[in-house]
Amino acid sequence: MPSGNDSGPLAGHYGLSVAVGSAIANDAFLRACRGLPVDRVPVWFMRQAGRSLPEYRAVRGEGSMLGAIARPELATEITLQPVRRYGVDAAILYSDIVVPTHAIGFGVDIVPGVGPVVEQPFREARDLDRLRPLNPEADTPYVLETVGNLVAELDVPLIAFAGAPFTMASYLVDGGPSRTHALTKRLMHGEPDLWAALLDRLADLAIASIGSQLDAGASAFMLFDSWAGALAPDEYRRFVLPASQRIFAELGSRGSGPPGIHFGVGTGELLELLATAGADVVGVDWRVHLDDARERLGPEVAVQGNLDPAAVLAPWPVVAQRVADVLNRNAGQPGHVFNLGHGVLPETDPEVLEQVVELVHGHRATV
Amino acid sequence: MPSGNDSGPLAGHYGLSVAVGSAIANDAFLRACRGLPVDRVPVWFMRQAGRSLPEYRAVRGEGSMLGAIARPELATEITLQPVRRYGVDAAILYSDIVVPTHAIGFGVDIVPGVGPVVEQPFREARDLDRLRPLNPEADTPYVLETVGNLVAELDVPLIAFAGAPFTMASYLVDGGPSRTHALTKRLMHGEPDLWAALLDRLADLAIASIGSQLDAGASAFMLFDSWAGALAPDEYRRFVLPASQRIFAELGSRGSGPPGIHFGVGTGELLELLATAGADVVGVDWRVHLDDARERLGPEVAVQGNLDPAAVLAPWPVVAQRVADVLNRNAGQPGHVFNLGHGVLPETDPEVLEQVVELVHGHRATV
Repeated sequence: MPSGNDSGPLAGHYGLSVAVGSAIANDAFLRACRGLPVDRVPVWFMRQAGRSLPEYRAVRGEGSMLGAIARPELATEITLQPVRRYGVDAAILYSDIVVPTHAIGFGVDIVPGVGPVVEQPFREARDLDRLRPLNPEADTPYVLETVGNLVAELDVPLIAFAGAPFTMASYLVDGGPSRTHALTKRLMHGEPDLWAALLDRLADLAIASIGSQLDAGASAFMLFDSWAGALAPDEYRRFVLPASQRIFAELGSRGSGPPGIHFGVGTGELLELLATAGADVVGVDWRVHLDDARERLGPEVAVQGNLDPAAVLAPWPVVAQRVADVLNRNAGQPGHVFNLGHGVLPETDPEVLEQVVELVHGHRATV
Repeated sequence: MPSGNDSGPLAGHYGLSVAVGSAIANDAFLRACRGLPVDRVPVWFMRQAGRSLPEYRAVRGEGSMLGAIARPELATEITLQPVRRYGVDAAILYSDIVVPTHAIGFGVDIVPGVGPVVEQPFREARDLDRLRPLNPEADTPYVLETVGNLVAELDVPLIAFAGAPFTMASYLVDGGPSRTHALTKRLMHGEPDLWAALLDRLADLAIASIGSQLDAGASAFMLFDSWAGALAPDEYRRFVLPASQRIFAELGSRGSGPPGIHFGVGTGELLELLATAGADVVGVDWRVHLDDARERLGPEVAVQGNLDPAAVLAPWPVVAQRVADVLNRNAGQPGHVFNLGHGVLPETDPEVLEQVVELVHGHRATV
């Protein structure tokens, strides 16, 4: 199948192939990201691959998640599973936001039931030396191989991704998932120069990682600032925005480069600022109704979302009504990628998501 | 010391004593709740009593939290500790939102490091029978005795409190703390009549519990809808607001009754709706700047907040600047109770909170 990557892998200019005309059979997702009209609303689901799928549990085995990511055949299969089952309009690489940090030897692992855990958290200036630049060919060759496999197989776009500097810093400084981000915020406010240097390194990692995935054939990318919603707008603007802005600028979003999506949970207060970071698309969680989100973001920015992941656990008539509500709030405007407002919950029934895809694809806006 | 409770304990009309003129020496908190001018901005801290205080750890002992709450002398001492140390302008009863539910025998305990855990979660209509009405004199006599002790000791107002119906339901249905509230949302959308009946019972419990604390001499109350921020505005309006509205109405907020405060974390999108519930004061977490919150809430509603609890972990000059920022954003308007945006973190240095109180009390608005 066509890879949509005319300029070959590792061409070094971040998937410009997309801009010069992709051969991807179904480009509804890319068109919606750019605010162009589409025949039907494109849909995919954050965490569409993974624990909710029986076929995932069948192939995944007992090993660690980072081990599975490092096996290109397995990672390829896991990425493809939801595309086959659901007929979604985009695939997202089976990987994790800690992969680059792990690959350069910072000492981070994914502990089942916990999340990323850092052996020696980031504490002081000399810890910057532990964040050397990523050399994707040498450090994460398995990622590039998986991306290469996928673009040879897929007829929908593949989404590259990385963790945004703030969210990555929150793991490295607090040492793992934190409800309060207390140590991270202390460093941010108490040592702003060191903080800026840390975020700069993490921005470099995100750029190198996403850039390499795009060069290997991915057609779009997503920057996950999952926990940015823990910040007040002024904090975000001062301490986070500059590093995230550089990522979107260097990857060429809103220009000739591939579309970039920016997302975090609980970011209602930050939506305009997330757009200011330079993304083509802003992901919206379910806490803000989509019509309100569009009003805040203006017509230049596309939106992705925003069905509550818990909504799909209800009886089908309720699910159907809530899917319709999301679509009706967008009122048929171009620039909408349907998605959940956060990742698929492990207890989700895949058959319900199949029905959701069908409903979204069959929807005609009632404008 | 004067108790401010002219009508005696258990008078059965929710602390009307406050309305007829309290003898509380320092009434800045009550005045600010009602939007009246004050000589200095009143301040208290959510979770001001508890794990952050060495004197708390010294008296608390090994027993369970529910056990400590049930010992009036101990609960009185724990409630008084932060008032003595910090010179805050209000005390809040040392208790927990699960106390009424526990007292009527629903089967809930507080597990250290976890939170409330329910033995047999709420699942179906017959579980409603497990939520019988609270008889405060028989079920929670220790609460009334603690309140009585406190009003005899305190020269600042005592705040009564209860958990709001949604947050209580989230524990009873999901069986404990939940990041997704998946089962709770499923019941809410899937069985709206049962949901409404559940919230009705929980509203009755909150009214009976708060009412009894007020009758015993408390001067104000706070309804904690801690997790309401997990809901979209339309969900909150349809499934939660009516029950919360009834609580504020029956307790006489915005009228002749004691001031009522409403609060949840991450409720930026819900602020106006929280005010619609009928509170005199809306608590604001740190994610919304106070000037924005006031703009959304209008001049009729007082605000409480909103320093990030993690902010006080930074070096003092940073803390001082952030305290000043909160105060300056309020710009000297009446109707501001200074507080954190969520509870005191256990790792907080009490000496920093002492300095915060001093700074707030010494502040003159720069209008």
